[in-house]
Amino acid sequence: MFLFKKIAIIGTGLIGGSLGIAIKKNKLAKEVVGVSRHKRSIDLALKNKAVDRGALSFDIIKGSDLVILAVPVEAVISLKEQVRKIAGKDCLITDVGSTKVKISGNLSKIFPNYVGSHPLAGSEKRGILNATPGIFEGSLCVLTTTKTTQVRALAKIKTLWIRLGAKTVCMSPREHDKILSFTSHLAHIAAFTLINSIPVNFLRFASGGLRDTTRIASSDPELWQGIFLTNRAELLKALKVFELNLNKIESAIVGNNKGKLAGILRQARKKRNILE
Amino acid sequence: MFLFKKIAIIGTGLIGGSLGIAIKKNKLAKEVVGVSRHKRSIDLALKNKAVDRGALSFDIIKGSDLVILAVPVEAVISLKEQVRKIAGKDCLITDVGSTKVKISGNLSKIFPNYVGSHPLAGSEKRGILNATPGIFEGSLCVLTTTKTTQVRALAKIKTLWIRLGAKTVCMSPREHDKILSFTSHLAHIAAFTLINSIPVNFLRFASGGLRDTTRIASSDPELWQGIFLTNRAELLKALKVFELNLNKIESAIVGNNKGKLAGILRQARKKRNILE
Repeated sequence: MFLFKKIAIIGTGLIGGSLGIAIKKNKLAKEVVGVSRHKRSIDLALKNKAVDRGALSFDIIKGSDLVILAVPVEAVISLKEQVRKIAGKDCLITDVGSTKVKISGNLSKIFPNYVGSHPLAGSEKRGILNATPGIFEGSLCVLTTTKTTQVRALAKIKTLWIRLGAKTVCMSPREHDKILSFTSHLAHIAAFTLINSIPVNFLRFASGGLRDTTRIASSDPELWQGIFLTNRAELLKALKVFELNLNKIESAIVGNNKGKLAGILRQARKKRNILE
Repeated sequence: MFLFKKIAIIGTGLIGGSLGIAIKKNKLAKEVVGVSRHKRSIDLALKNKAVDRGALSFDIIKGSDLVILAVPVEAVISLKEQVRKIAGKDCLITDVGSTKVKISGNLSKIFPNYVGSHPLAGSEKRGILNATPGIFEGSLCVLTTTKTTQVRALAKIKTLWIRLGAKTVCMSPREHDKILSFTSHLAHIAAFTLINSIPVNFLRFASGGLRDTTRIASSDPELWQGIFLTNRAELLKALKVFELNLNKIESAIVGNNKGKLAGILRQARKKRNILE
């Protein structure tokens, strides 16, 4: 008994491709179809067994009982009409975008069966060639709901993620965007800013610390530009907190204040150790 | 034929311990002795075959032809008199501190055979239990010299690092501190500041990106307080560059400027990709 009859994945990149591979591997749908803007992506998705059939046109999603929009945030919003024209009224809709207020505001208006998904399992890499079926196992997936979310739709989307090995947690799009502005978007800002600050001729002296701290600075610029700008208000608030903490450490250094400086660093270590 | 007759390592922690293990494994000294403030560290150094003999007192370094100060920056400076009293006139002296202007200014005055070493091979972990002999293989070691550095001393310290598998590069203490203020110290400031900015109840939503970006925030607070304050002037200059770049990205977000924002992120990715 399949969980879904036909799942359509719009965008067969790192997350979309990994989803297709994992869904097929776990036999969660009788059929998985993929849509991409590029013929090459479709071919790669077929070759990597991420989809059973693929096409450049949206017609292929007809008859799906789940459509997953696995494209950058802005594309999720701009593709909504194309999906609506073809997806049936009972079709569940989800996305895997990194910000949720704008997407949810747009999609929940026109899709009664929309639930937002954000699997916290990406990486700085892109493309199906970096896709792996195990990427969701043991990961956390945030599901976003609104007052109009259908209980049945939420239950089924939740089951999908659980069957892929993820834990799920439910919250409002606003809560999601606030949390992620700190845990993900601010971290990217720090990494982008750090690498941009380092004179290029000093890079040969980089050690493991700099490499790790800036790894996510090689993330896709177009994708992240969209994430930052669709979460502008929350991100700017998080940035203010970061600047406040930066000023604290700077003023301890300016003032040659050993005790204050060590206190700030001890607080950081204590907090960082929670993550392990 | 050993490169050294007797090497004394002051401080048998992560770097000192790894050095002892690697020196003994590569048979670079007839004897390796260790000094630590703590009996437990000596016992661990003996158990891990980092030293042949160990002691709490500096008397054990007598007769050494190389003394390696593998203690935090401030301790390197404060221990200089104790070393001078016991080490012979011909004994080579080096340290493995992360800043060099202050150390070199202090040590080259009283030790004619002093050469600064900074193996770019540390980690956020400390203690000999995290020591590994292979830590220096393929790593870069910066050697710092001044006008008064003896050519013979430099040649021998350089040979030591090369025999441990490191590449070496020579520069002035000032040049070293300027480069490291960006590639290492600023990266630590970014990591400390980032983790301190994240509300503790949001930490459960941390993904791999945040983990990597903040890994070095669990570094030893006392050690890093000393590094920051002994490289204050250069670090404050690097911080200004960081703040300038932070303001650039912030103003692109405030202004909703897609083109400018994407340009900043593209520049970051291009630079980060140089590191791989």
